[in-house]
Amino acid sequence: MGPHPAVAAIRLAVRRVLHDVLTPTSPASVPPVPSGATGRPPLVLVACSGGADSMALASALAFEAPKLGIRAGGVTVDHGLQDGSDLRAAEVVSRLAAFGLDPVEAVTVAVGREGGPEAAARDARYAALDAAAERHGAAAILLGHTRDDQAETVLLGLARGSGIRSLSGMAVASGRDGRYRRPFLGLDRQTARKACMVQSLPVWDDPHNADPAYTRSRVRHEALPVLEKALGKGVVEALARTAQLSRDDADALDGWAAAVEPSVRDDSGALEAAKLFALPPAVRRRVLRRAAISAGSPAGSLFARHIEEVDRLITGWRGQGAINLPGRVAVRRQGGRLVLRQG
Amino acid sequence: MGPHPAVAAIRLAVRRVLHDVLTPTSPASVPPVPSGATGRPPLVLVACSGGADSMALASALAFEAPKLGIRAGGVTVDHGLQDGSDLRAAEVVSRLAAFGLDPVEAVTVAVGREGGPEAAARDARYAALDAAAERHGAAAILLGHTRDDQAETVLLGLARGSGIRSLSGMAVASGRDGRYRRPFLGLDRQTARKACMVQSLPVWDDPHNADPAYTRSRVRHEALPVLEKALGKGVVEALARTAQLSRDDADALDGWAAAVEPSVRDDSGALEAAKLFALPPAVRRRVLRRAAISAGSPAGSLFARHIEEVDRLITGWRGQGAINLPGRVAVRRQGGRLVLRQG
Repeated sequence: MGPHPAVAAIRLAVRRVLHDVLTPTSPASVPPVPSGATGRPPLVLVACSGGADSMALASALAFEAPKLGIRAGGVTVDHGLQDGSDLRAAEVVSRLAAFGLDPVEAVTVAVGREGGPEAAARDARYAALDAAAERHGAAAILLGHTRDDQAETVLLGLARGSGIRSLSGMAVASGRDGRYRRPFLGLDRQTARKACMVQSLPVWDDPHNADPAYTRSRVRHEALPVLEKALGKGVVEALARTAQLSRDDADALDGWAAAVEPSVRDDSGALEAAKLFALPPAVRRRVLRRAAISAGSPAGSLFARHIEEVDRLITGWRGQGAINLPGRVAVRRQGGRLVLRQG
Repeated sequence: MGPHPAVAAIRLAVRRVLHDVLTPTSPASVPPVPSGATGRPPLVLVACSGGADSMALASALAFEAPKLGIRAGGVTVDHGLQDGSDLRAAEVVSRLAAFGLDPVEAVTVAVGREGGPEAAARDARYAALDAAAERHGAAAILLGHTRDDQAETVLLGLARGSGIRSLSGMAVASGRDGRYRRPFLGLDRQTARKACMVQSLPVWDDPHNADPAYTRSRVRHEALPVLEKALGKGVVEALARTAQLSRDDADALDGWAAAVEPSVRDDSGALEAAKLFALPPAVRRRVLRRAAISAGSPAGSLFARHIEEVDRLITGWRGQGAINLPGRVAVRRQGGRLVLRQG
């Protein structure tokens, strides 16, 4: 008798990613860290909060890695945001060690305030995971994000209204050299929970996940259930599919913009209005965005409405003055050319 | 003292579209119907249900059209779905006539069942409006869709999970020669209601709009309010902006696919797998979709998952058999080529 279907599902998902780490097959993959560099088998870490998704992930990694000759370790991040979080981290470490993972460690981070509490915690967490990967020479770090997390991320991106890149959610592989892998992005949260239950793994429910002070928590507990009620049960799957399609579309259009950009600049490097005008709007806006960023405007502060305003210098030219962008970048139209200058 | 801001807003929105009908300025526009053809000034019709949005639209058209030398008329469609709908239609006709619109008429349609009650009613309505436009030689038909309707349409498209085209909502101009115009697509519903109120226009609230048996009604009254609560007040605007950005992106990618398609076919017209493989996934999938449609698969039944399966003949080839698409179109890979055939 084989394992419970939920356990089979999480193991299969992890196995696929481990195969990919050993011998990259998909175009999104990057070459694996050569094990020859250290003379030891490659190491894959799991980032584990102690919640159901990442506990399931850790259990599957511990099961699959040895069969492929891969070393498996684990990291838990103590954000220091709740009383007793250090005890919690120590408990997760002991559970990961009990799976046979090695190395296993808890890292403590100091969460700042930039970008709000959720973004600050995320930034601190990824910095700590990056450092752990470097320290241990890990080829990959597995993250427990599920299809439900992906759906939530798409809705959060939708609320920004800044175009299809923000609808594209999380990537299957991201970070430096694609080191972060998300094996469960196609699995639903219920499967991960079920896999923990049938394996008798105790899991921790982060009270933050249910705290309506957090936007993601409201999306999870209020918005998605109502959307499912209004639109039907397939909403999570539809949102996740939208993420993948949007990502591919955004990649293609970004590639187009990058390829065409040199051809719309004159010899001095200035953007020519007439050539920009001839581009499809979707491509033109991306060229303008690239130009703004390379002039010094920070990507994260540059919204669709900024680019729309710059675009009007091309499509609605009536002698308007300079457009001011974040990062003190001014864009003006002079003699049929766009001049971007940081003040 | 000028008009109330809400009235000023609806008039400005209509004025812009009427200017565009007279002298097309935006790239989306098409040449106007030459008034010389009939020797009379161009005619613009408003489609009016008697609800707040289209009553506001009719009032603004009646005010603005004469100033631009445009004739203004109105049509109301009696779907025959509710008791007394004929009396309702007659009442709308008399209100439109009271605005000074001419010609004004009620047209009765028979609503079928195809695609569900909402789609069937919409199909019947547009067919009747098309016929009215032809009968009267109208240059344009104005529709009262607001930014809120647009946001609802984006959510409905999101639920299909079939990519960015289904996120692109309604166009500012659509239909044959762009005859349908939506002047209020950038205005919120509240502005239209307010404009009716301050002009003392009685409006009709279609009970269907509040009937939870209709998906759109559930989106309007349940999903959007909860989304706003979870994500913040700007959700409707963000959804509407997503529609516009997605539309432009989808147009650009469709254009790319159309341009590249001939180059991935061999002399006999068959699609070459190696050339398809070299395309960005977003473009390749669109080329495959185009090929499926031209082989006879009906566009409306062809979903993202169908195209994904065909795509696997290119990206995950392991000798699999024919893929069956809607419309009895079979796709197989033979000797490095895709063969599409309708059975």
